[in-house]
Amino acid sequence: MARFIALDIHAGIGASLRDTVLVAFLDTAGCILSGRNEAVTRQLSAWLDQRYRNDRAARLLFSEERHSVAAAAMLNAVSGHALDLDDVALAGHPSVVLVPALLAESDHTGARGPALVSAYIKGYQVWADLLRRLPDPLHVKGWHPTAVLGTMGAAAALCALRNTAPDVTAHALGIAASRASGLVANFGSMTKPLHAGWAAEQAISAVDLALLGMTASMDALDGPTGLLTALSSERPPDRQTPFFETGELAISQVRPSVKKYPVCYAMHRVIDGVIGLRNRHGLRPADVERIDAHVSVTNARVLKYERPAGPLEAKFSMPFACACALAFGEVGLRHLSAETLSDPAVRGLMPRVRMQELDSQCPIEPSFAYTDRVCITLKNQTVLDSGPIRFAVGHAQLPLAPEQIEAKVLGCADPAEEAEVRALIARLRGLLGDRP
Amino acid sequence: MARFIALDIHAGIGASLRDTVLVAFLDTAGCILSGRNEAVTRQLSAWLDQRYRNDRAARLLFSEERHSVAAAAMLNAVSGHALDLDDVALAGHPSVVLVPALLAESDHTGARGPALVSAYIKGYQVWADLLRRLPDPLHVKGWHPTAVLGTMGAAAALCALRNTAPDVTAHALGIAASRASGLVANFGSMTKPLHAGWAAEQAISAVDLALLGMTASMDALDGPTGLLTALSSERPPDRQTPFFETGELAISQVRPSVKKYPVCYAMHRVIDGVIGLRNRHGLRPADVERIDAHVSVTNARVLKYERPAGPLEAKFSMPFACACALAFGEVGLRHLSAETLSDPAVRGLMPRVRMQELDSQCPIEPSFAYTDRVCITLKNQTVLDSGPIRFAVGHAQLPLAPEQIEAKVLGCADPAEEAEVRALIARLRGLLGDRP
Repeated sequence: MARFIALDIHAGIGASLRDTVLVAFLDTAGCILSGRNEAVTRQLSAWLDQRYRNDRAARLLFSEERHSVAAAAMLNAVSGHALDLDDVALAGHPSVVLVPALLAESDHTGARGPALVSAYIKGYQVWADLLRRLPDPLHVKGWHPTAVLGTMGAAAALCALRNTAPDVTAHALGIAASRASGLVANFGSMTKPLHAGWAAEQAISAVDLALLGMTASMDALDGPTGLLTALSSERPPDRQTPFFETGELAISQVRPSVKKYPVCYAMHRVIDGVIGLRNRHGLRPADVERIDAHVSVTNARVLKYERPAGPLEAKFSMPFACACALAFGEVGLRHLSAETLSDPAVRGLMPRVRMQELDSQCPIEPSFAYTDRVCITLKNQTVLDSGPIRFAVGHAQLPLAPEQIEAKVLGCADPAEEAEVRALIARLRGLLGDRP
Repeated sequence: MARFIALDIHAGIGASLRDTVLVAFLDTAGCILSGRNEAVTRQLSAWLDQRYRNDRAARLLFSEERHSVAAAAMLNAVSGHALDLDDVALAGHPSVVLVPALLAESDHTGARGPALVSAYIKGYQVWADLLRRLPDPLHVKGWHPTAVLGTMGAAAALCALRNTAPDVTAHALGIAASRASGLVANFGSMTKPLHAGWAAEQAISAVDLALLGMTASMDALDGPTGLLTALSSERPPDRQTPFFETGELAISQVRPSVKKYPVCYAMHRVIDGVIGLRNRHGLRPADVERIDAHVSVTNARVLKYERPAGPLEAKFSMPFACACALAFGEVGLRHLSAETLSDPAVRGLMPRVRMQELDSQCPIEPSFAYTDRVCITLKNQTVLDSGPIRFAVGHAQLPLAPEQIEAKVLGCADPAEEAEVRALIARLRGLLGDRP
């Protein structure tokens, strides 16, 4: 693994992969902007000021304020995960850990271009490799992959960016392995976004400590009492297959899926379906008798709020998502509000939404049905059918267009900040070598 | 659990429990002194200076130097665990996490006396309670209990000392649960002592963050995706039994066992046996034909170095331990040296030591045989038999006398520092209310 991290993979990275990584950086930047005013971000910021030495090495939340690399990476990751709007892959949220760690390091050292792209891809690879060795889903056991595998992926990405010697890399990964943790039980609390921040911070610490000469065991990952065993004591993990055996990059097989809507990913396909039918048929709330949303059994269980009491619950409410999509033609950050929840059109539509359970299964994402579907019954008894919806707009298989990505990033900030956000987008494009 | 932590338990703490906690503080202080010059301690100290804001709130390594509470607790815990000389109980090393966290907090706030004693006992209780709910040994799965349960115990102890409101305590424990980690695979590397430091640091962070208003889920410990499940996904942990059900304090059932010798605890009973026979019979190395050390199968496996190449390996070498004990009548920190390893008496004796495996089992500590035994065959073919040895001197069931504890603490420092160490012992006795 340490050898792979030291590999020069620039030559194998084509324009398409570079674009994928650029989208990951842009989307994460938008998410970081979106979470700036959340309570978890503000409280963490105060704590970091008390706790960490501030050498002003890296930018906080894309503002003029600066802090240490570790503090900036942590705060930015927490802000990026605070609203759960960040991208999804590898059973978790890879970019919200990798990108803040790499951007903070880049602020500090000036690292840019292909070095950043390669480092992201290597961190993604290590995350994917560890995940594939675990026979059962981490979520079911209580481990949050973004926290556990994020710590490892970010440590790998940082070693790549700093170009550490292979033995330092091996020790850094071993030190990081002893800190990989984070519980699914803490979903729905402020500790969930903290997981992303800790993953980034622990990765930076592990690399710093290894560079100072701290040692770990060489079997900390794959030994009989190493991380893989600890995460899968009931069924043996794959501790044998060589790393990077196929020589194929994980990211060229599964790219991160960008979330277009700031709600649980389990509703995204249905929202696309509702908006499609609305636009095609010029639907208005008063026309609609009922909405049937067909999703997998697992997703139906996750979406547990029939009558959401507030915006946090609305993120996991199918009636809210369908009603909002039908009433406004979109589900945006500004719709996650008490005003939208009490809007007469939304309130009138929510009781008309039903979930229907499907038992097919998607081979890429087993908790999902192979396809979702929406049927809208009009007051005149006409039934409008979305037909099967295989991928949400933004999914790795159905990516957002560049202007849609930019629109999402802009939508994450105040409209008054448009000029600054456009400048940030241009800066990130330049940083990643989009315009050489 | 949060309610227990808020309980006033002073009235139930008699002189014997107070003495037990005092011994834990004194012994840990000695261990902290013993590790001051280890590479892991020195390197960590440099890193803490770079990383942490220094508000000079707490003492570093009992010197005049000071740092933040978090940095001091971390450095002192790492120093205390660097030589693995610290006390043993609850499947790990409770005092080397609890004591540095409490002492750093005490330096900062002036907390003392019964408040410190109660806080230690409450942290110990939470550690014991979580341990008892897990059906299989954490070590076998790869989890290091000192790191995992230490984070929880120290968070509880700090909440007790700071007298946090029960809801803050519950959030602090939930936040800490998301950081409980540390791998057995990293034993034998510098990451092992880092585990103790991180446990203390993460506990302080969790309490600080909860006091700032950060939230965790209320089922982060015992929920279906909480810490207990994550640590025991193969066999269901006990998530039902009420906390502190019997109303009996764990520490009044099993006290920490103090290590008299700076080597693996699996050899302590045998060393006692060798020293006993040596002193009783006036043995000299030249008299001895062979030494048979009878220990459990598990302990024989842990003690893997027949011909130790250096002091770190000597800590896990039965030939070294027996030879050193016979040649010098003691096994001290100064004997873990290249000089002792190349001493002719020790080199002559080591090949004469054999391990014999026993298959009985100790109900208190299942990795141990019920009793160990040493037989020394003299050159004149006389066989001297220690008889069964149930507990090592220093074990909870066979505690060191106060003067033996003081001798250990003094032995952890340079002889030139004797006056300072005696003053430290007196200060700690005063701090814990030994002299009201």
